[in-house]
Amino acid sequence: MIIADLKTPYYAVIFTTLLTNNLADYEKTAIRMEELAKLQDGYLGIESTRNKIGITVSYWKDLASITKWKNNIEHTEARVKGRNKWYQQYQLRICKVERDYGFKR
Amino acid sequence: MIIADLKTPYYAVIFTTLLTNNLADYEKTAIRMEELAKLQDGYLGIESTRNKIGITVSYWKDLASITKWKNNIEHTEARVKGRNKWYQQYQLRICKVERDYGFKR
Repeated sequence: MIIADLKTPYYAVIFTTLLTNNLADYEKTAIRMEELAKLQDGYLGIESTRNKIGITVSYWKDLASITKWKNNIEHTEARVKGRNKWYQQYQLRICKVERDYGFKR
Repeated sequence: MIIADLKTPYYAVIFTTLLTNNLADYEKTAIRMEELAKLQDGYLGIESTRNKIGITVSYWKDLASITKWKNNIEHTEARVKGRNKWYQQYQLRICKVERDYGFKR
């Protein structure tokens, strides 16, 4: 789903990933993390897709919301599993969205 | 490919897309635009993936580089074709990357 109705400024977390072949519990945890993120204060939406690499962009009201989500215990446990098992490589970027344009046919 | 060696602050353009079924010349143009972007001043890298939706994130030194690339004639012509034929919906976000963390096994 494409998130189209946000008002700048807001924040984006760009999470780019390359998976290992050791994916036990990965899909279940990814779904759970997306459900849990949606319950957090300041959560605005998520866009996610995967082919050779995965790109997930979550949108947040402000930096404080991102920090609080980072410190969520269940999320912290999932990140440890990610580094131990699921991810070959990842990059995480925290960005301030300054401009936002959309098109819909 | 995951871009892992950039120093903050820099800029990201997040381009999230949903394609139509009218994709004549789309792939050829997408490859050409990626080649052309790489030649621009201030270009730092690109990450791109597509499944149900496409997410392409290009990275740039500053806002001026992004504006100059936006005004490139061949790029402008490609964007017109995109709105006329290839895209059902898109969202384009211009962001300042404030923090950047990486992991590699």
